Amino acid sequence: MAAKEKTLHDAFYEMLKDVYYAEKQSVKACKKSAKAAEHAELKQAFEAHAEESAHQVERLTQVFEIIGKPARAKTCEAMQGITSEMEEDLEDFAGTPAADAVLAACAQAVEHYEIARYGTLKTWASQLGHEDAAKLLDETLQEEKKADALLTRIAGRINAEGAKAAA
Amino acid sequence: MAAKEKTLHDAFYEMLKDVYYAEKQSVKACKKSAKAAEHAELKQAFEAHAEESAHQVERLTQVFEIIGKPARAKTCEAMQGITSEMEEDLEDFAGTPAADAVLAACAQAVEHYEIARYGTLKTWASQLGHEDAAKLLDETLQEEKKADALLTRIAGRINAEGAKAAA
Repeated sequence: MAAKEKTLHDAFYEMLKDVYYAEKQSVKACKKSAKAAEHAELKQAFEAHAEESAHQVERLTQVFEIIGKPARAKTCEAMQGITSEMEEDLEDFAGTPAADAVLAACAQAVEHYEIARYGTLKTWASQLGHEDAAKLLDETLQEEKKADALLTRIAGRINAEGAKAAA
Repeated sequence: MAAKEKTLHDAFYEMLKDVYYAEKQSVKACKKSAKAAEHAELKQAFEAHAEESAHQVERLTQVFEIIGKPARAKTCEAMQGITSEMEEDLEDFAGTPAADAVLAACAQAVEHYEIARYGTLKTWASQLGHEDAAKLLDETLQEEKKADALLTRIAGRINAEGAKAAA
């Protein structure tokens, strides 16, 4: 009955599989959002981040290699919940003045989930002695933070337009 | 068939109901995490944030009052996904050297979901002319950011201990 005790190495691998799934979903969500967005700057941001996210998926496969484990995706319920809410919101607000504001908000929920996870993965990688993996994870973390900051700036402008249209 | 077109006001109210649900769940998750945590500083952080989250729920009821709408919670699938993953992780790592590191990571996923949502709500409130609501939402946003930063600091120390035990 005495199963081998789980360690931080196991927690790291489990979270890596979770984020591998989430990042692949993120690529799909970005492409879908790029199609749905009306605001040119927002559309462009989604297109650029879809490409960036594809590179981030590649980076994750490198991290799997570094730790000598197979690259596997594990269904991430958090990401499923976020994208499920996103689909509902897009349906509810499609074609309304608030559509782009809602799209940007959904994308920021995805970004923040990823910021939390990459932050944890980076710290754990470093503490487990995988400095090369920590470096790769930090590159993605910085990209996610920049993507979130860009969305905040764009959302400020979109929302104002939405509010004006609604007034 | 021509339903009244949805506006940013509707998007704001929908997200407020979503966050009202998420924040109530967060109070429960904090209390559960405080009981599960071994590390004294982590336990204390969860206890303090459980109280803080209860005040944040109160603040949300004030925002509902400001916009003249009933305070209602709407099931938040994103938060459900995050807490469901959290429960699975706690079960998998309970009693292991990585347990506290995993607890802190789960809490940071919750914090980041809230940071994304309060950021959006604050911006929308301001753009819809509810400056008093924007101020309340910003107070919570700053608390969430501080809670996340504190968890990052504590997690650094816990993880190091976990890594040592696992080596």
